[in-house]
Amino acid sequence: MVKIIMHGCCGHMGQVISQIVNEDADAQIVAGIDPFDNGKMEYPVYKSLEDCKEEADVVIDFASAKAEDALLDYCGAHKLPVVVCTTGLSEEQLQKVAETAKKTAVLKSANMSLGINTLLNLLKSAAKVLAEAGFDMEIVEKHHKHKLDAPSGTALALADSMNEALGNAYHYTYDRSDRREERDPKEIGISAVRGGNIVGEHEVIFAGTDEVIEFKHTAYSKAVFGKGAVQAAKFLAGREPGLYDMQDVIAANA
Amino acid sequence: MVKIIMHGCCGHMGQVISQIVNEDADAQIVAGIDPFDNGKMEYPVYKSLEDCKEEADVVIDFASAKAEDALLDYCGAHKLPVVVCTTGLSEEQLQKVAETAKKTAVLKSANMSLGINTLLNLLKSAAKVLAEAGFDMEIVEKHHKHKLDAPSGTALALADSMNEALGNAYHYTYDRSDRREERDPKEIGISAVRGGNIVGEHEVIFAGTDEVIEFKHTAYSKAVFGKGAVQAAKFLAGREPGLYDMQDVIAANA
Amino acid sequence: MVKIIMHGCCGHMGQVISQIVNEDADAQIVAGIDPFDNGKMEYPVYKSLEDCKEEADVVIDFASAKAEDALLDYCGAHKLPVVVCTTGLSEEQLQKVAETAKKTAVLKSANMSLGINTLLNLLKSAAKVLAEAGFDMEIVEKHHKHKLDAPSGTALALADSMNEALGNAYHYTYDRSDRREERDPKEIGISAVRGGNIVGEHEVIFAGTDEVIEFKHTAYSKAVFGKGAVQAAKFLAGREPGLYDMQDVIAANA
Amino acid sequence: MVKIIMHGCCGHMGQVISQIVNEDADAQIVAGIDPFDNGKMEYPVYKSLEDCKEEADVVIDFASAKAEDALLDYCGAHKLPVVVCTTGLSEEQLQKVAETAKKTAVLKSANMSLGINTLLNLLKSAAKVLAEAGFDMEIVEKHHKHKLDAPSGTALALADSMNEALGNAYHYTYDRSDRREERDPKEIGISAVRGGNIVGEHEVIFAGTDEVIEFKHTAYSKAVFGKGAVQAAKFLAGREPGLYDMQDVIAANA
Repeated sequence: MVKIIMHGCCGHMGQVISQIVNEDADAQIVAGIDPFDNGKMEYPVYKSLEDCKEEADVVIDFASAKAEDALLDYCGAHKLPVVVCTTGLSEEQLQKVAETAKKTAVLKSANMSLGINTLLNLLKSAAKVLAEAGFDMEIVEKHHKHKLDAPSGTALALADSMNEALGNAYHYTYDRSDRREERDPKEIGISAVRGGNIVGEHEVIFAGTDEVIEFKHTAYSKAVFGKGAVQAAKFLAGREPGLYDMQDVIAANA
Repeated sequence: MVKIIMHGCCGHMGQVISQIVNEDADAQIVAGIDPFDNGKMEYPVYKSLEDCKEEADVVIDFASAKAEDALLDYCGAHKLPVVVCTTGLSEEQLQKVAETAKKTAVLKSANMSLGINTLLNLLKSAAKVLAEAGFDMEIVEKHHKHKLDAPSGTALALADSMNEALGNAYHYTYDRSDRREERDPKEIGISAVRGGNIVGEHEVIFAGTDEVIEFKHTAYSKAVFGKGAVQAAKFLAGREPGLYDMQDVIAANA
Repeated sequence: MVKIIMHGCCGHMGQVISQIVNEDADAQIVAGIDPFDNGKMEYPVYKSLEDCKEEADVVIDFASAKAEDALLDYCGAHKLPVVVCTTGLSEEQLQKVAETAKKTAVLKSANMSLGINTLLNLLKSAAKVLAEAGFDMEIVEKHHKHKLDAPSGTALALADSMNEALGNAYHYTYDRSDRREERDPKEIGISAVRGGNIVGEHEVIFAGTDEVIEFKHTAYSKAVFGKGAVQAAKFLAGREPGLYDMQDVIAANA
Repeated sequence: MVKIIMHGCCGHMGQVISQIVNEDADAQIVAGIDPFDNGKMEYPVYKSLEDCKEEADVVIDFASAKAEDALLDYCGAHKLPVVVCTTGLSEEQLQKVAETAKKTAVLKSANMSLGINTLLNLLKSAAKVLAEAGFDMEIVEKHHKHKLDAPSGTALALADSMNEALGNAYHYTYDRSDRREERDPKEIGISAVRGGNIVGEHEVIFAGTDEVIEFKHTAYSKAVFGKGAVQAAKFLAGREPGLYDMQDVIAANA
């Protein structure tokens, strides 16, 4: 039984994860951390990790970026493994994540879903074969109308994955309306569609001569990210210090 | 039997159309016009319309923009109906198209395929119902790597079609990477994907709460544009002077 | 303020609808009917309509087929409008729905979502133009692994909508593996994909020569059906006796 | 410079391949074999291999099944490598292919396109990870209205590829309309859509809980199969006897 502290337990993702763990026989949330206790959680909720009395194997962090520093300090000092799902971290904070990983096990990924992480892996092989054979690579991502950033972090991670496999010889383009020229063979176009409450859709296109291959991932609910976070927590409990990502979780389960 | 003069007969589309007419019992190309005769055509080829000795009911024009003025002058003067498929016309030339339509029947459309023109029609009804109900509208188009302009003229025509049905209250956006804000409810995002030798794909997305409707058109060969041009020529032969488009052809066949 | 009785209030869809109405300023659930009260509802719950003390303008019915007869008897006798969303009704029950519609307003549709009902409308126009022009029609639907029936009622409704527009000259085919012959021009192929927890996806394909047009609807959550049911209830309150469907709701809102 | 004999040179694919080789600096068709010489080929055409005077490194075979036995006999006897693209071979002929591969290099694949063969490879890895994690696998293929068999050989090859990676524990289902039950976790549904002149589209769907991954291949022209055949011929020239497939070609180019 893996004992989890849920950091950011009263936010939307905190509640989603609480429900997932509730139905999981091998994991348990022993305490939650949140400045605003909504009184609905079935475990004790504290304002900060310092106040927390329960012992745990791992922290799942789905809070706001401003709570990140205190979290990392605490986990580093107490050798407490932590799954970092909070996004929008500053450069300094990303640096701190790396520092913390020298003292305890830290897992961080651009996207927590099993599906996207499987794609990230396959795209490396696909890019090597297909780009070599002259296929052009493009990405289209679709998200809800409230999303502020474009393209999505996951779209960039998908592009990076292919680019790395190809010696980082590619650059990314986000707009073609401002020029009048042929496509550069070394560019990866990334388009961002926004509308409704689309959870997240990513399509990677390899366009060749007379044939096109598409890899598409559709998330139907934010629960997929929560499920990945719980898998990551189970994987991380008891690990050596170091920086891990979802690829390690997949490899361990394979 | 509709007698056609093929203007630009030795270009790629001229050859495609010649083959389509060849298999059509109700139409015949009686002469071609092209500055460069490739010697492969089964009908007489002249350097200009002035030289042409054959009588015809209609001209199909798939040539270069610089030949457009002489063509329009000739058709206007001789009351010869003309299907204008040449793209990249200047503002003056578009003006001249309108002038010519006062003297003879002229047909011009952003896209010659039956499929796209059917979509243009349906999208007006769809936009009225769905935009009213809070759906967001987006367009993704895909074309080959050699295409210079983005977004495609057809994508803009699709957007215009929806926008007109909604009182032209919408503006278009081509890039979201340069800002960090929520989607404007009154914007239509248009994304352009380029790669391989994709003939042309247009996807119109209506994204609502918990449901998405997509309308997608895929052209597998440039022959669809040629086929539309021949249908248009048959429709135009014998018509009164005026400016027509493919919607009229569809309505006449319905 | 439209007063609603929720028939089948403690089932999954009953709970979804309760939440939707909760956030709607123009509607209110005054009572629920369910043989099994889960004690979580914020309105009184009765075992049967006969027991219900509250007055209402309309009933939303998302219960089981075996409760349908008592419901229809009651609504007919009390001139109480009813939105019938329960599926799997027998021939006798469908007959009873028609009978009840002579006494009070009854609304029944194969699919309650605005999106699908908009598609049903557009497909009639599309089918007329495209089938005439030689396009072949096919449908692919995708649903979760627990769905018992195939193809879905909505896929059949989409096919029927096109077929009716074409004089009912088409027949449907569900399997091509058992024969070795060309496609019959008068057939509509309907394929059923099952897997995961896909809520519902319907794709209607018009395949022509060198071009394909696809109309696709994706439901991301069962809430779309609930939302449609509430819209239908608001529409139905105060209506004359008669049999209505979602097309009437859309027309009234247009 | 690889010297090729084109077996079935006057058929549609024979002509397509002739054009591809024509534009290839590293290959040349030195002779064609066809019972019906259309007089359009730029190389000598013979009625049978026995008559052929030219020396060659490899044969590309895109003829009819009834010419297969003589072809295999000849290639085996003369140690002439052969790329077998002809489909619809009988069990005896498939046996003969295997026998011939003991005497000379023979390459045979369900699908000659680079894209499909890349997919076949990736699907093995994907299936292992995703089926393990509870994703359901389904395939939808789309082809032109004249195709006689369903599902396509390529769809079956895609299913086989996943099935082999999973210990052949799965069975295939082609029709769900004749039963009323939940999906069997150990089934792969394969649906066949037919219409227009669609060249070939294959979509492999992994449907999980709240997420779906799709792998899609679209062929826009039969030239992709011809191109693959030429690549295969170049690969096969000078090889040791044995049975090869397109996976070997990809591996050699990687």
